[in-house]
Amino acid sequence: MVFSAPVVVLVRPQMGENIGAVARAMSNFGLSDLRLVAPRDGWPNRKALEMAAGGQSIVENATVIATLSEALAGAELAYATTARARDMDKRVILPQMAMREMHQHSASGQACALVFGPERTGLENDEVARCDTLITIPTAVENPSLNLAQAMVVLGYAWQCEQNQPCNLPSKIVEKLAPAEEFQGMLNQLEGYLDESGYFRVAARRPIMWRSLVNMFVRARLSEPEVRSLRGMMRCLYEAKET
Amino acid sequence: MVFSAPVVVLVRPQMGENIGAVARAMSNFGLSDLRLVAPRDGWPNRKALEMAAGGQSIVENATVIATLSEALAGAELAYATTARARDMDKRVILPQMAMREMHQHSASGQACALVFGPERTGLENDEVARCDTLITIPTAVENPSLNLAQAMVVLGYAWQCEQNQPCNLPSKIVEKLAPAEEFQGMLNQLEGYLDESGYFRVAARRPIMWRSLVNMFVRARLSEPEVRSLRGMMRCLYEAKET
Repeated sequence: MVFSAPVVVLVRPQMGENIGAVARAMSNFGLSDLRLVAPRDGWPNRKALEMAAGGQSIVENATVIATLSEALAGAELAYATTARARDMDKRVILPQMAMREMHQHSASGQACALVFGPERTGLENDEVARCDTLITIPTAVENPSLNLAQAMVVLGYAWQCEQNQPCNLPSKIVEKLAPAEEFQGMLNQLEGYLDESGYFRVAARRPIMWRSLVNMFVRARLSEPEVRSLRGMMRCLYEAKET
Repeated sequence: MVFSAPVVVLVRPQMGENIGAVARAMSNFGLSDLRLVAPRDGWPNRKALEMAAGGQSIVENATVIATLSEALAGAELAYATTARARDMDKRVILPQMAMREMHQHSASGQACALVFGPERTGLENDEVARCDTLITIPTAVENPSLNLAQAMVVLGYAWQCEQNQPCNLPSKIVEKLAPAEEFQGMLNQLEGYLDESGYFRVAARRPIMWRSLVNMFVRARLSEPEVRSLRGMMRCLYEAKET
């Protein structure tokens, strides 16, 4: 059986050197699909190629995409690496468990994405909300700050370990989830309805209200039929209101 | 219980940047004792400090030592990371198992060393022979070559994982071994006796003959009383021959 490795999504990466070093580590540990969300210094980037050491083809084939939501196209599940704790109701797991899950998802034909935030600031809360699970890398309290390439080495290594000794997960974890496009389509549809219905009355509270909703839907781990049902339900509610 | 982290020994490291990046990774994952065997560009090294990002004190306190044998002073067990397979009768294990063992050794009051060879060439065979166990990092066959800092990230992460979830090993593995100085003293004594006894008749075969002997003694995992017994035995044999 062939396990397809997770897609790697770098959100607003700053330094070309870091992108190259991530590509190198991906290549070292058997990952190949790299997607860049709005890289700061544009693309292509010469420094990324120089640092890739064996991962040049990963750099050359990397795709540049405008937003995280679009970059998740084709991936049923998104795992975000995060350094600081977020005040969000999200599952937080260690790298090895994350890779074990991704391995199982892959075995059941589902693609996973591994999402990294910008070097200094990390992911924005809306982006974290869009991800299913957070991965935290255990570090020493004295110096917990890893750079992008170090984090990719840890996760690539954990992926490679899992390739060598797969192990089973409860079946709940490996249900077939809706493709990201379907899921995102549902969110877009809902957001439109809510805007037009005047749901977000206080503009200042709009971001946090919407984020909470996204969080809930992500946490529900919806299947494709469930997404279809929900979209039908939302349309039905919205159209009923207009009459 | 406090577990002391393994000592890190870089043998003939070439680039200051790599030494600094290793120090950074050590700091990220809770290791602190860095020993440099004959660094190519001398010491101190400005580039090492610049790359250390939080591991500056590790760079500043690093010690420079002439040989691997001396660098192992105080460490009962040496684990060498190695990229290529060696034609030697050595145990080869994965990082997580190595760190599990080191953790257990540490719990029984024994120090371990983690040995890395030079960037391009890796450790020489005599140096590998001096180490108890080889660690191999699982990588993709297409690009198996990790740099020093990447290897340190993998092993540091594996150490940190073990800190979080210790696990027991068979007691055979965690016996109290002889300190490195005692063990090395025995080897030096034996080598002197063999030279003077004309054991190494064909000069060209001397290195391989001696390496085989070292390998055997290392593999035996000798305790301090055993080393004393062997030294007594060797002296006895040698002096008997002279009469």
